[in-house]
Amino acid sequence: MQVWRVLSMAIVLYELVGIEDRRFSSNSWRTRMALAHKGLDAEIRAIHFTDIGKLWGNRFKTVPVIEDGPVVLNESWKIALYLDDTYPQKPSLFGGAASRELTFFVQSWVDAVLTSGARNFLILDIHDHLTPPDQKYFRASREKRFGKTLEELSSDRERDVVAFRASLEPLRRTLSERLFLGGSAPAYADYVVFGTFQWARSISRFRLVEADDPIAKWFERCLDLHGGIGRKSPGYT
Amino acid sequence: MQVWRVLSMAIVLYELVGIEDRRFSSNSWRTRMALAHKGLDAEIRAIHFTDIGKLWGNRFKTVPVIEDGPVVLNESWKIALYLDDTYPQKPSLFGGAASRELTFFVQSWVDAVLTSGARNFLILDIHDHLTPPDQKYFRASREKRFGKTLEELSSDRERDVVAFRASLEPLRRTLSERLFLGGSAPAYADYVVFGTFQWARSISRFRLVEADDPIAKWFERCLDLHGGIGRKSPGYT
Repeated sequence: MQVWRVLSMAIVLYELVGIEDRRFSSNSWRTRMALAHKGLDAEIRAIHFTDIGKLWGNRFKTVPVIEDGPVVLNESWKIALYLDDTYPQKPSLFGGAASRELTFFVQSWVDAVLTSGARNFLILDIHDHLTPPDQKYFRASREKRFGKTLEELSSDRERDVVAFRASLEPLRRTLSERLFLGGSAPAYADYVVFGTFQWARSISRFRLVEADDPIAKWFERCLDLHGGIGRKSPGYT
Repeated sequence: MQVWRVLSMAIVLYELVGIEDRRFSSNSWRTRMALAHKGLDAEIRAIHFTDIGKLWGNRFKTVPVIEDGPVVLNESWKIALYLDDTYPQKPSLFGGAASRELTFFVQSWVDAVLTSGARNFLILDIHDHLTPPDQKYFRASREKRFGKTLEELSSDRERDVVAFRASLEPLRRTLSERLFLGGSAPAYADYVVFGTFQWARSISRFRLVEADDPIAKWFERCLDLHGGIGRKSPGYT
């Protein structure tokens, strides 16, 4: 009699890394936290900006990318939906269909307001935490995209952060009255917001929010989630 | 043998009215749509700004107010939670606990960005659609609150609407990919956003968004919901 053994293969997650093992991809953090939330085995592989084009035959330009057996996927939102649909017996990322739709609104806000707003504050610090080949790529591509030097883009951050912090009011109000965006427990919406703050923490001493902001207190709670995988990752406090 | 008959008493909703039967309270529209969504009998009572203080012994300063038998409540969010918790056998406003939490984020965004951003564009038009005693109250209270005349507040709207429309990007992205914030069917999050656009429609020809904006198309869909109660209410097209 032959015994078949099902091998539980870990899902592979590719994320960006800089010097000093800094994991600074905001969108990869969404996926990293989602995998932990669902209790799925994951093998994290750190790659450089200039590696993305070499892997998967130029199929992807951004991380996160996951490999789940034969399935290869990128884009954090598609990955989140895939994980929740493929592993419904594991804790839900969204807590229902209606919540999934509204999480997309939260993500749209994060992309359009939070991450876009923070980008200039961090862009030079990101550069300074990259390996030399990635520095060269990053400076050239970003200066071309935005039509300014990295130094120019980040020069007014002490002034601009005032309006930026004011723009976070919807998040602040929400987190003033609950532990997580998901209520008493974190949901994928939390991880979407977390990714941006963890991106900042990983490479910059610049404070996106003041220490007594309810958002800062929520971020501290998130750093401790899932065995503290956020806090254990190299960053500034 | 005595036959007892349970009298189904309608829930009374108080909302603001101006001249020409214009119902311009954004937050009352949240409640009006919520009552319709749940299929609850409602009796709508239109009152003036200067009536609010006379009713309920000065207990409330704003509408909506509902009376459900002995229960008297104000504030649209508290009312929405009350309706969903009190009538769980009726269609849910939120579609689950997780979605309820995220709806609060949507509402915080509406209050801090959408309604606050639109206020100056509409403030003079609101005034012009009030009865004379309400006009007097409205002008005095708003000019005191904001430190400018209503004319000054609304003078730059053609210029300011450009940045305002850009600030709606999270909503635009979300509605580009789905019929409603709730997905294929409307949820309370839709009614929260709807209230602000219906407020504008009720008293102003000024376009908060352009006609080909996905947000404008979504608003048209909302006007047709629940027997077209939104569209039937007096307003500009």
